[in-house]
Amino acid sequence: MSGCPFLGRKHQLFTSKPSQAEEEDESQKGINKATKGGIVYGEYLQLDKVLNAQVLQSQQKGDKIHDEHLFIVTHQAYELWFKQILWELDSVRDLFIKKHVRDERNMLKVVSRIHRITMIFKLLVEQFAVLETMTALDFFDFREYLSPASGFQSLQFRLLEAKIGVADHLRVPYNRRHYRDNFHGQESETLLSSEQEPTLLQLVEKWLERTPGLENDGFNFWGKLQANIEEGLKMEKHKLEKMEDSEVKEDLLAELNKQTEIFTALFDPKRHEHLLSKGELRLSYKALQGALMINFYREEPRFQVPFQLLTALMEIDTLMTKWRYNHVCMVHRMIGSKAGTGGSSGYHYLRSTVSDRYKVFVDLFNLTKFLVPRSWVPKLNPSIHKFP
Amino acid sequence: MSGCPFLGRKHQLFTSKPSQAEEEDESQKGINKATKGGIVYGEYLQLDKVLNAQVLQSQQKGDKIHDEHLFIVTHQAYELWFKQILWELDSVRDLFIKKHVRDERNMLKVVSRIHRITMIFKLLVEQFAVLETMTALDFFDFREYLSPASGFQSLQFRLLEAKIGVADHLRVPYNRRHYRDNFHGQESETLLSSEQEPTLLQLVEKWLERTPGLENDGFNFWGKLQANIEEGLKMEKHKLEKMEDSEVKEDLLAELNKQTEIFTALFDPKRHEHLLSKGELRLSYKALQGALMINFYREEPRFQVPFQLLTALMEIDTLMTKWRYNHVCMVHRMIGSKAGTGGSSGYHYLRSTVSDRYKVFVDLFNLTKFLVPRSWVPKLNPSIHKFP
Amino acid sequence: MSGCPFLGRKHQLFTSKPSQAEEEDESQKGINKATKGGIVYGEYLQLDKVLNAQVLQSQQKGDKIHDEHLFIVTHQAYELWFKQILWELDSVRDLFIKKHVRDERNMLKVVSRIHRITMIFKLLVEQFAVLETMTALDFFDFREYLSPASGFQSLQFRLLEAKIGVADHLRVPYNRRHYRDNFHGQESETLLSSEQEPTLLQLVEKWLERTPGLENDGFNFWGKLQANIEEGLKMEKHKLEKMEDSEVKEDLLAELNKQTEIFTALFDPKRHEHLLSKGELRLSYKALQGALMINFYREEPRFQVPFQLLTALMEIDTLMTKWRYNHVCMVHRMIGSKAGTGGSSGYHYLRSTVSDRYKVFVDLFNLTKFLVPRSWVPKLNPSIHKFP
Amino acid sequence: MSGCPFLGRKHQLFTSKPSQAEEEDESQKGINKATKGGIVYGEYLQLDKVLNAQVLQSQQKGDKIHDEHLFIVTHQAYELWFKQILWELDSVRDLFIKKHVRDERNMLKVVSRIHRITMIFKLLVEQFAVLETMTALDFFDFREYLSPASGFQSLQFRLLEAKIGVADHLRVPYNRRHYRDNFHGQESETLLSSEQEPTLLQLVEKWLERTPGLENDGFNFWGKLQANIEEGLKMEKHKLEKMEDSEVKEDLLAELNKQTEIFTALFDPKRHEHLLSKGELRLSYKALQGALMINFYREEPRFQVPFQLLTALMEIDTLMTKWRYNHVCMVHRMIGSKAGTGGSSGYHYLRSTVSDRYKVFVDLFNLTKFLVPRSWVPKLNPSIHKFP
Repeated sequence: MSGCPFLGRKHQLFTSKPSQAEEEDESQKGINKATKGGIVYGEYLQLDKVLNAQVLQSQQKGDKIHDEHLFIVTHQAYELWFKQILWELDSVRDLFIKKHVRDERNMLKVVSRIHRITMIFKLLVEQFAVLETMTALDFFDFREYLSPASGFQSLQFRLLEAKIGVADHLRVPYNRRHYRDNFHGQESETLLSSEQEPTLLQLVEKWLERTPGLENDGFNFWGKLQANIEEGLKMEKHKLEKMEDSEVKEDLLAELNKQTEIFTALFDPKRHEHLLSKGELRLSYKALQGALMINFYREEPRFQVPFQLLTALMEIDTLMTKWRYNHVCMVHRMIGSKAGTGGSSGYHYLRSTVSDRYKVFVDLFNLTKFLVPRSWVPKLNPSIHKFP
Repeated sequence: MSGCPFLGRKHQLFTSKPSQAEEEDESQKGINKATKGGIVYGEYLQLDKVLNAQVLQSQQKGDKIHDEHLFIVTHQAYELWFKQILWELDSVRDLFIKKHVRDERNMLKVVSRIHRITMIFKLLVEQFAVLETMTALDFFDFREYLSPASGFQSLQFRLLEAKIGVADHLRVPYNRRHYRDNFHGQESETLLSSEQEPTLLQLVEKWLERTPGLENDGFNFWGKLQANIEEGLKMEKHKLEKMEDSEVKEDLLAELNKQTEIFTALFDPKRHEHLLSKGELRLSYKALQGALMINFYREEPRFQVPFQLLTALMEIDTLMTKWRYNHVCMVHRMIGSKAGTGGSSGYHYLRSTVSDRYKVFVDLFNLTKFLVPRSWVPKLNPSIHKFP
Repeated sequence: MSGCPFLGRKHQLFTSKPSQAEEEDESQKGINKATKGGIVYGEYLQLDKVLNAQVLQSQQKGDKIHDEHLFIVTHQAYELWFKQILWELDSVRDLFIKKHVRDERNMLKVVSRIHRITMIFKLLVEQFAVLETMTALDFFDFREYLSPASGFQSLQFRLLEAKIGVADHLRVPYNRRHYRDNFHGQESETLLSSEQEPTLLQLVEKWLERTPGLENDGFNFWGKLQANIEEGLKMEKHKLEKMEDSEVKEDLLAELNKQTEIFTALFDPKRHEHLLSKGELRLSYKALQGALMINFYREEPRFQVPFQLLTALMEIDTLMTKWRYNHVCMVHRMIGSKAGTGGSSGYHYLRSTVSDRYKVFVDLFNLTKFLVPRSWVPKLNPSIHKFP
Repeated sequence: MSGCPFLGRKHQLFTSKPSQAEEEDESQKGINKATKGGIVYGEYLQLDKVLNAQVLQSQQKGDKIHDEHLFIVTHQAYELWFKQILWELDSVRDLFIKKHVRDERNMLKVVSRIHRITMIFKLLVEQFAVLETMTALDFFDFREYLSPASGFQSLQFRLLEAKIGVADHLRVPYNRRHYRDNFHGQESETLLSSEQEPTLLQLVEKWLERTPGLENDGFNFWGKLQANIEEGLKMEKHKLEKMEDSEVKEDLLAELNKQTEIFTALFDPKRHEHLLSKGELRLSYKALQGALMINFYREEPRFQVPFQLLTALMEIDTLMTKWRYNHVCMVHRMIGSKAGTGGSSGYHYLRSTVSDRYKVFVDLFNLTKFLVPRSWVPKLNPSIHKFP
C-alpha cells in the first residue's frame, strides 16, 4: 500500500458493503477493471477524454499558434471547477430542500461544502495569473479563429449564477439581449428548468425564517429588540439634549436623527415589502430578523455554525465579484477598453456586471447598518444560555 | 463583437491566411462548425468530453460518496495543467534542439514560456488548498474503491520529470522498484522514448557552453577570472598576515584557507569531471563557466534575458520541490505517517523525493559559492560594453 | 463619516462606555489627540516609529546597496505578523487556562482565532515570493554587513514555537548548541519564562481529556469502541477464512493481522505510556481517546466546532512546516547548499527542521490509522443524538 | 557561518571596501554594535520600534477589544510595504531622471524593480484575506475609538499615486474636497513637492519618445507603418467588394469602415492632441509610436526587455485597481453599502475609484486597438535584425 492518498489499499478490508464485490453487475458500463479487480489511474480519471480534448482551431486552419493551447486548457480548467462548484451547490441545496438541515447534524456538512466553494473560487481568481502570461499580441494571433465562440456561452457559469440566486431582473442586459438567448436546444432547457428550482438564496431564506427565538409567543426577539432600541435612542437623545450648545452637539443630534430613521425603517414591515418589490432587498422580513438574530447571538453554541454559514455565503458573493473583476482586468489587457465594434463594448458590459446587483446575499452585508451596542441586545437567561 | 477575450470577431478581417476559409478541407475531422462558419464555446472546448469524465467508483459500487467527485476533478485539473506544462516544455526544447536560440530573437519566447511554467506550478501548489477541504475521514469513506490506482501511475508527471532532466540514477526507488514499472504498453514506450530525447538540462548545458566570451582565444573569461581570483586571494592573505595576532586574525585566516580551497577546486577540471561522474554535479565544466559568466555580467544587454532564464530554471526546480512537499503534507493529513502496510510507507517514500537529488539545476544554486567582489570580475572594455 | 472601515464616526454615538470621553485621564500616555478629541491615521499607527526603522547597514558603511531595504522591510513584516500570531495564541491559551472553554460559548472565539493564525501563516508563506525577487548576487553585495546578525536570534519565532509546544528534546541542535544560547539578558528570561507556561498542546490535551462521552460510568466510548472493533476484526477473520485459498486470501489475512496489531496496540495503555516517554507520541491516552471520539462524532452539534478546532490545529502544524520549507528553498537560492564554513551547513540544519519532530499535533495526523467502518462506531441514542 | 541568508559571515573577507571598518565614524548615529564589531538581529531590524508601536485605542479607553490589534498590525504591514514600493519607485524614477536608461545596461535593473513592485502588490491583495477574518461585528466593537482617523490620511498611498502619475484632474473628489485636504504641515508639503517631480508616467513617456527606429530620417517606423496600413486596408476593401452580395459582405464592409476610421484617427496627430487635452489619452503622440513599435518588434534583442517593462507597467495599473477593488469588498463586509451619514457614502466613493481614470498606463492597454497582421508590420533588414 502506498502513502499517496490516491492509492487505495491493494486489497480491501473493512469495506462498508463487503458483499458488493461479488454482486457487481458484470454488464455495467464504466471503467475497465481488467487488471485483477482494480482500476488504474488513467482509466479512473478518464484521461483519454480529458487529455484528448485540446484541438487548436489555429492548427485546424493550418496556422498553429502556440498560445492557443494555453487558452483552451485554462478554459477547460475553469469549466472543470465550475462543475465541482455545481456539485457542491446542488448537494447543499438538496440538504435544504429535503429539510435535512432541520437536523442540526447536517450543518457541518453544509458549512464545509459552502466553504469548499469559496476555496475553489479563490483558486479560480488565482488562475487568471496563468492566462495573463499570454500577451495581447499573442492572443491577437489566434483570436480570429475562435469566432464566434464566446464565454457568454458557458452554460455552467449561467447555471451557477441561477442556482445561487442571481435575479433575472437585476441582470445587466448585453446589447439588449437576454443572457439565455446565447443558448439553444438542450442547454436552453437545462437553464430554464434550473430556474424553476429553488435557489440557494430562497432556501437560506426559508431556513432563516425558522430561526429559533423569533417566535412571537416565545423569546420574541424582534419585539424585545425594538423595545430596547427605542429605549436606547430615547436615552441617547436625552443625554445629548443636556449637552451645552455647540457644533458637536448639533452634529451628534443630526447623527442621532439619522440613526433613528434607520431603525424606524427597520421596524416597518411595509417599508420592507416595498423595498423587496423594488428589488432593493432580497430577503424576506422574517429572514432578515433571523439573520440579525444569528449575528447578535453568534457565540451561542447553536448559532456558531449558522453564523459561519452566513459569513461563508457573503464570501461567495465577494469572491464571485472578485472573479468578475479579475476577468474584466484580463479583458482590458487583451483587447483594450474600446474594442467593441458592434453595439456596446464587451469590456464595458463585463465591467457593469461587477456590481452589487449581482451580489445575491447583499442584505447580509447591509446588516451592519443595524448593529447596536451589546447592552441593547435582548438578554438570554444567563444561567442556561437558552432562549426561554 | 464582444469584449470577452474569448470572443473572436464575428466576421474575420485581417486574417493572416485569408484564403483558407475557402480552401478548408471538408473532410477534416474536428469541430462541427455548422453554425454559419463558426464554432461555439462548448464545442470548441470539447466540454462533452471534459465534463463527462467524472465517474465515481463509489457510485458504481452503489455507495455514492460525495467527496469522491472533488478527488476526481482535482486530479483531472492537475493532469490538464501537466499537459500544458509539457506543451510549453516541448516547445522550449524544440527551440533549443533546432538551434533557434542561436538567434537571440527567440530568447524572449524561451524565457516567457519557462516563466509560464513557473506560473502554472504556483497555481498547482495553491491547488492543494482545495483538496485539503476534504478531511481524512471523508477520504476514508471511498479510499477502498480506488484500489489499486495510484498517483505513481501518472504518465505525464513522469514525462515531466524525465524531460526536464531528473536523473534516473538519482531517483529514490520505491519498494525497490523502478518508477517505470508502473507503466505498461504504450505508456511504457512513450516514457522510454522520451528518455532518449535530449532533456532540458542537456539543452541548456549545450547552450551555456557556447556563451560568448568563453573562447580561450577571445575574451578568455575563465583564464582572466582565475588570474584575478588568485591575485585577490594573495592580496587578502598578505593583508591578514599584517594584522596583529588575535582570535579574529586566526578565524579570518582559517576562513581564507577555506575560500582558497573552494577556488582551487573550481579551477581544477579533473575534480569537476570526478564530481560529475559521481552525480554530485550535473553541468559540464564549460557550461558552469558560461553560467558563472552570465551571472557576473548579467547587466550587459546581451546577458539580461539569459540571466532571467537561469533564474527561471532555478524557480522551476524550487517549485517542483514545493509541489512535492505540499503533496507530502496532504498525504500526512490524509493517511498519517505510518499507514504503510506492505513494504515501506508511501509517506516516507514521497518525503524522500523532496530532495536536492531531484533538483535538476542544482549547480545553478551552488554558483553562489563562487561569488567574488565585483572588483575581481574581469573588466569589459567600458566604452563599448562588449567582449573584446 | 467615511466608507473606509478605517474610519470611525466623526462623533460618537452608542459608545459602550459613553461617559469615558469626559472622564478621560489627561495625564495618560499614548496618542496625541490634539485635533478636537480625535486621532489621526499616522499617529494611531505610530508610523513615525514603524517607518523610521529602516537603517541600511550598507549605507552606514558608505556603500548603500539598494536591495538591503527590501531585506529589512521583509523581515520587519515577518516580525509584525509574528507579533499578531502571538497575540492570538496568547488569547487562546488564556481562554483555555481560565477554563473558559468549558463554557462552549467560547469555542467560536477559539476556532476563529486559531483559523486567523492559519490565515496569517498562509500570507507568510506567500511573502517569500517578494524576497525571492532578490537574487543571490544582490544579496551577496550587502551580506557581509549583516554579520553576525542571524534569524536564529528572532525571539518571537522561538516564543511561537515554545508556546505552541515544540518540544525542547525533539529539536535539532545547531552546531551542538541549544537554541536558547542565541539569546541573552531580558530576551533569554522571556524565553525561559514562556517555557514554564502551559503550551497550546498541553491545554488542548487537558481539554480533550474532558470530552463528554469518555466517562467509564457514562457513555463509555472507549469501552464500547474496543468491544466493537474486536468483534469486527473477528468477523472479518471469519469471513476471510472461508475464502478459497489464493494469493488474495493470503494478502488479506496478512493485512488483517497488521490491522489487528494496530488496534491491539491502541487499546494497550502501557504501550501508549511507553511511546509517550520516548517522544513518539505527544498526547495523553485519555486525550487521544477524546480526539478520536470527536472525529467519529464530528457531525453531532456539540462536536462540530471542536472538530473544526482539531482540523485547524493540524493546519497550523502543516503551515509551520511549509513556512520552514519555503525558508529552506530561499536559503538554497541565496547561498547554495554547501556554503557552510564552520561546523555544519546552515542550509542542512534548516532542512533538518522541516521534520515531523516539529509537528506539535502529529498525533492528530496519525489518528487516521485508527479509522474504522462507520458501522463499527458505537451508536448514540438516535432519537436524541445525545450521549446517554 | 550559518545557512540562513540572514546571516552574514562571522568575520569579513572580501569586503568591497575593506578599510572602512577602521575609518568608521565613531560619532555616527545608528546601531549599537557593542557585541564585538557586529550587530544582532533585533537591533538591526529596530524591533524595539516596530514591535512597540501597537497601542490599542480601545485599551487606552479601558475597554480592550481583542481584534483592534489585528487592525493595527494589518495597517502597519500595509504601510511597511508601501514604503518598500516607494523605495523601488524612487530608484526607478531616479534611473530615468539621470538618463541612466540611455545606457541599456540599466534596463534589467528597471524591469526587475518594477517587477518587484508587482510582486509586493500581489502580496498586498492577498493580505486582505487576513483582515477579512475579522467580522463586521468585531469591527463594530472598536470602530468608535478610531474616530476620526481615516485611511484617506495615508500619506504614503497618496505619494504612491502621485509618483506613478495618477492625474489630479482625473481623481474622483470625495465630498467635494481635494484629497490633499486630508494632510497638513510637513505631510502636505511632502505631497506638494512630490507633485512637482516628474512622475513615472512622464519619465516613461520621455523614454518611449526616444525609441530607436522612430527617426523620420532613419528607419521611419511611423511613416512606413502608415503606408503599409493604408495599402492593407485598400487591398482588404478591394477583396471584399468582389464578394457576392450578402449579409456577411455588408457586415465585413461595415467592420472595415470602422477599422479604417480607427487607423485614420491613429495617424492624425491633431486628434491625438485633442484627446490628450481632454484627458482621454495620457501619452504623447511620439511616445505612443514608441510603445507600438516596441510591441511590434518585441522579439528583437534590444526590445525584449523594454517590452517586459511595458507589460510590467500595465501590471502595476491592474494590481492597483485590484487592490482598490479588494479594499472596496472589505469595506462592504465591514460597514455595508449604505452606511454613509454625512455626504456621500464612503463605500460608493471608494467604488468610484476602481476606475480606468486611475489607470496611469491606460494607453498601453488600448494599443490592442491598433494591432495589425504581422505581414503589415514594416520589415527590418532580416540579415542583421537592425533598424537600418
